[in-house]
Amino acid sequence: MTVIAAVDRSDAAPHVVSRARELGDAFGERIQVVHVLTRDEFVSLERTNVSQTGETIPTQDVIQIAEDIAAEAIDEADVDATPVGLMGNPADEIVSYAEDKGARYIVVAGRNRSPVGKALFGSVAQSILLNASIPVVSIRGE
Amino acid sequence: MTVIAAVDRSDAAPHVVSRARELGDAFGERIQVVHVLTRDEFVSLERTNVSQTGETIPTQDVIQIAEDIAAEAIDEADVDATPVGLMGNPADEIVSYAEDKGARYIVVAGRNRSPVGKALFGSVAQSILLNASIPVVSIRGE
Repeated sequence: MTVIAAVDRSDAAPHVVSRARELGDAFGERIQVVHVLTRDEFVSLERTNVSQTGETIPTQDVIQIAEDIAAEAIDEADVDATPVGLMGNPADEIVSYAEDKGARYIVVAGRNRSPVGKALFGSVAQSILLNASIPVVSIRGE
Repeated sequence: MTVIAAVDRSDAAPHVVSRARELGDAFGERIQVVHVLTRDEFVSLERTNVSQTGETIPTQDVIQIAEDIAAEAIDEADVDATPVGLMGNPADEIVSYAEDKGARYIVVAGRNRSPVGKALFGSVAQSILLNASIPVVSIRGE
């Protein structure tokens, strides 16, 4: 089995990885840190000039950048974990990946602050909570 | 430290207790199973004839019934855990109790089915997720 840490590009990502590692240590399981990119995000990241050239984006390129983002969160958390990059709708991809792997837990940063300081529950986290058959561990994303 | 299982009176309660026990076993911690009753629920449970007599409801009576409900969930789950009864707003009481105890996790049944079969996220669970500084483990409530 495994514990899945679902990370976005926020400051909360290393905390999500650390918490997943803590669960993994307690249960003797490895950690997979998953970041999901949509094609639109890939283009907006400006790590590519695809939007200028109008070429088709190779799926493998998107997945590689997503994996790099997961790897950055692991580096910041400074723990042992495997980065995984996926492409598509974040909540859908995370839930189906975790269920395919028979994961024990999915760890997410659920709560964030809006620009005006109000506590909000993230829409990706909410969708994961509603759709996953696996227990979801929600930590503060602030 | 401790792991808090927050239970309602639904069929999901023993699953919440079992999952909390699993976390407690992994981390070497004891489990407290908390049920919170409002005064209104206490009256509607018809374990009292207070509504007929118009007498003041003793707080201790409400807390005792809440603890009995927590104890029932523990019995059904058939694990080692301590029942705790509280009175007031469920989400507020659970969050402040868990934070006072320095709990490692709060386990809740997040998802339920509406009468028409739609997946919904429970309002108490949602409020706990938004307000707790402690990680919240949400399991399927169905």
